Amino acid sequence: MGSSEPTRIMVAVSESTIKGYPHASISSRGAFDWTIEKIVRSNTSGFKLLIIHVQVPDEDGFDDTNRIYASPEDFRNMRHGDKVRGICLLEYFVNKCHEIGIACEAWIKKGDPKEVVCREVQRTHPDLLVVGSRGLGPFQRVFVGTVSEFCMKHAECPVVTIKRRADETPEDPVDD
Amino acid sequence: MGSSEPTRIMVAVSESTIKGYPHASISSRGAFDWTIEKIVRSNTSGFKLLIIHVQVPDEDGFDDTNRIYASPEDFRNMRHGDKVRGICLLEYFVNKCHEIGIACEAWIKKGDPKEVVCREVQRTHPDLLVVGSRGLGPFQRVFVGTVSEFCMKHAECPVVTIKRRADETPEDPVDD
Repeated sequence: MGSSEPTRIMVAVSESTIKGYPHASISSRGAFDWTIEKIVRSNTSGFKLLIIHVQVPDEDGFDDTNRIYASPEDFRNMRHGDKVRGICLLEYFVNKCHEIGIACEAWIKKGDPKEVVCREVQRTHPDLLVVGSRGLGPFQRVFVGTVSEFCMKHAECPVVTIKRRADETPEDPVDD
Repeated sequence: MGSSEPTRIMVAVSESTIKGYPHASISSRGAFDWTIEKIVRSNTSGFKLLIIHVQVPDEDGFDDTNRIYASPEDFRNMRHGDKVRGICLLEYFVNKCHEIGIACEAWIKKGDPKEVVCREVQRTHPDLLVVGSRGLGPFQRVFVGTVSEFCMKHAECPVVTIKRRADETPEDPVDD
């Protein structure tokens, strides 16, 4: 069992609404950590992570989308002014992948996150999409982030939503 | 990365609506095979599968629910008359697990499948629930099995739905 090709897992990441760039949102970190702890485990050569961050056009002012970052070095020559914002977010996750020893690719796209994530699934055909959500505990399941809900319905690959842990929920649960 | 405890994945399985017991439905086999090929891969010691089959009360006439089957031997002394029906379904998956070398537990419950699966998630706390669905391809995403849709909303663990492949869809796509 297990083909020779690694299992390709796309993880959609976003910035923190509390701390802003370059901090990753609580639910992004939850989705990433769950993928490593529960799925990849020690089998780092069996998996490849595709890290995607979608920037809403109004929020940014640069055009570093469509570049691919595959190692910490790829970020070193890129730091000037506002350009670091989304890139630092990717760097956080790419650095973690390199520490763990798992292959990854990370890239930025602009647009409506839920639609762009589904379009990138269609383009890159991952085996699984992992999306974090702010889901508010067992008795409030009605609320799930629109990105995760949209992707579960429309992404053309299996999707798993990782809900934020109750003990990580900020004072205002809309924050992340 | 990877705790010492194996990742526990619950797979909900059902009988074929075309062939009946003891045949597994197409979508059950798809969910099981996806779990092995894409998640477990060669890391069999890192995972444990929890195989659950929920029988609708009207459909059966025996009370072998709540037994746990963990090896092919457990089934040998059980064959008499109608009792084999659901048990043979579990045996199919338990045998596959033993061939692959992955630990498993399999059991039968009675009730409404979507509610019982969620209750069993609450009771056993798996790290991931995998549910097959008859999902009818990219342009018919609106239709997904009620079990998978209900579990995605209500199960208290991450859920992934594995849609049946287009080339495995029977003539009547409601069949499985």
